[in-house]
Amino acid sequence: MNGALMAAEIAEQPAVFARILHDGQPQVAAVARAIRARAPRFVMFVARGTSDHAALYAKYLVETRLGLPAGLASPSTMTIYDARPDLRDVLVLAISQSGGSPDLLDPMQRARAAGAITVAVTNAPGSPLAEAAEYHLDVLAGPERAVAATKSYTAELLTLYLLVEALRGEDGAAARALPERAAAVLARDDEIAALAVRYRFAEQTVVTARGYNYATAREVALKLMETSYLVAHAFSGADLLHGPMAMIERGFPVIAIVPEGAGGAALRPVLERLREREADMLVIGDPEAARLGTVGLALPDAGPEVLTPLLAILPMQRFAWYLARQRGGDPDQPRGLQKVTETW
Amino acid sequence: MNGALMAAEIAEQPAVFARILHDGQPQVAAVARAIRARAPRFVMFVARGTSDHAALYAKYLVETRLGLPAGLASPSTMTIYDARPDLRDVLVLAISQSGGSPDLLDPMQRARAAGAITVAVTNAPGSPLAEAAEYHLDVLAGPERAVAATKSYTAELLTLYLLVEALRGEDGAAARALPERAAAVLARDDEIAALAVRYRFAEQTVVTARGYNYATAREVALKLMETSYLVAHAFSGADLLHGPMAMIERGFPVIAIVPEGAGGAALRPVLERLREREADMLVIGDPEAARLGTVGLALPDAGPEVLTPLLAILPMQRFAWYLARQRGGDPDQPRGLQKVTETW
Repeated sequence: MNGALMAAEIAEQPAVFARILHDGQPQVAAVARAIRARAPRFVMFVARGTSDHAALYAKYLVETRLGLPAGLASPSTMTIYDARPDLRDVLVLAISQSGGSPDLLDPMQRARAAGAITVAVTNAPGSPLAEAAEYHLDVLAGPERAVAATKSYTAELLTLYLLVEALRGEDGAAARALPERAAAVLARDDEIAALAVRYRFAEQTVVTARGYNYATAREVALKLMETSYLVAHAFSGADLLHGPMAMIERGFPVIAIVPEGAGGAALRPVLERLREREADMLVIGDPEAARLGTVGLALPDAGPEVLTPLLAILPMQRFAWYLARQRGGDPDQPRGLQKVTETW
Repeated sequence: MNGALMAAEIAEQPAVFARILHDGQPQVAAVARAIRARAPRFVMFVARGTSDHAALYAKYLVETRLGLPAGLASPSTMTIYDARPDLRDVLVLAISQSGGSPDLLDPMQRARAAGAITVAVTNAPGSPLAEAAEYHLDVLAGPERAVAATKSYTAELLTLYLLVEALRGEDGAAARALPERAAAVLARDDEIAALAVRYRFAEQTVVTARGYNYATAREVALKLMETSYLVAHAFSGADLLHGPMAMIERGFPVIAIVPEGAGGAALRPVLERLREREADMLVIGDPEAARLGTVGLALPDAGPEVLTPLLAILPMQRFAWYLARQRGGDPDQPRGLQKVTETW
């Protein structure tokens, strides 16, 4: 079947969550202890593609839950311009499914030489990136063979969530319900398949969210681009108002991620503006928000807002899969892509 | 004339550069002295929209030329989630044309209270943001009345460049040729007008660059979205290879910014991949790179790479202006936008 690999890996996610919660805690606790002993003042993330969206989620966690300033590195400042920043007291977290992309390895080696506390978060314990870092966290997703990353993304999110919780002395107990909640979301497959049909001839879309789920919006857009070749553009709700709103005309397809919580609440005024412009809206979120869309997908029992990015992405991975097949493509063989992207 | 305001402000840019170089140096030197005395360890930028692209440019400058880690703040972590990061030894630079957007003011006030060194970079000395910061840099662009920011963007770039040079004890002499070079670029108006005609019926475009000009790619995309309603999506060359390349099909319009230097050189392999996929390419860059495009616009005498973002954006502002008029719009009245965007 076209897309069998990606379909299987999407379906594995509840089990991956359970594995991380069961087997991953000791390594997270050990790495958190080592980091705390060195009391970092600042956190820098190094990642590309899907893993960069996991980094974006973790950046919000670090700022809101650890109270530390954080930034996403521009790897090219090191690889192209040979920058050598002073990284004492800086925690550098490099995130990569394969641990094999050369444009992350070089910044990681430099960061370690420059005095940073270095942690690699990968799905590949023996990889060059894992070896280059002082500490390694295995996201325990199991081998990922589909070109479009799915289970490694949510595994990165959960591992980073547990790490941040451990750094603040918490055990991440709120995550325990995730396997069951994830299974409940994925069980609504017929509803997701029917939604995807509607986008068969869409040429472009804007995906929007605020707060923790801005990462979800970015990842939804990437999945749609790489599997369905739909031109999908993610904006935080605030950035959408700073200019791009002008291009939204009547019937323009917008996908909004609006789970219960402060981020979803802050997106409501953006939804109002989109409605005034008569955009076509698919709203994924709490039942009340889902009713605000032209079409909606309700996530009734998504738990605390901070964990909603681990659930809201699931139906949209499956949506991208269905849409790719609708459009005659093979989700496992996106044209022009390889599993490990070699940039520099 | 439709678009008279934006046209006049685009044309003013050589004079604005001259003004900053002549009148702006004392304030830059004074602020740089104050910052150096406090020896920041990390730099955080707070901005939205066009000013966020100026922040992106400055982030590269800080990493490559000052050797300090830097990050772009997610203002919503403070405004939505009430994050209170520890900002001792952190230089917080907030950038805003109007200095009036409430979603920057609140993070700035919090940053100052949390011990940061705070600098506002605005075009409005008496604005709330300028008042909230410990130090203020006036970008001296003169009143900007067009909704689409042009001269305030390049004025922010130059002010930030001079600040970073002053922080490393340099006088920014390389910038002295900018007024003349900017005038030479803008003089090629007929060529730019002819290029814009070609995009009359384009529905979407991808804009790409690497290094310092990634900011240019982002700003080009925003200008096209807000004035011409063209769905324009910016990617760094590296990110384009991580997934979005799949959506580039034969004839897909791509705009590449490829000035001479390491960033342009690093983009060359991406151009090869785009050519293999038979993308339609407009290349703005050095004469050799411009010949690699389906169509090209050569910037023959653009000076050192670090200053090319101040020149490469100019023809594309004008391109967006021409395209908006081609498509029957008024560049001065983008639908659904206001000059000061009130987000939260």
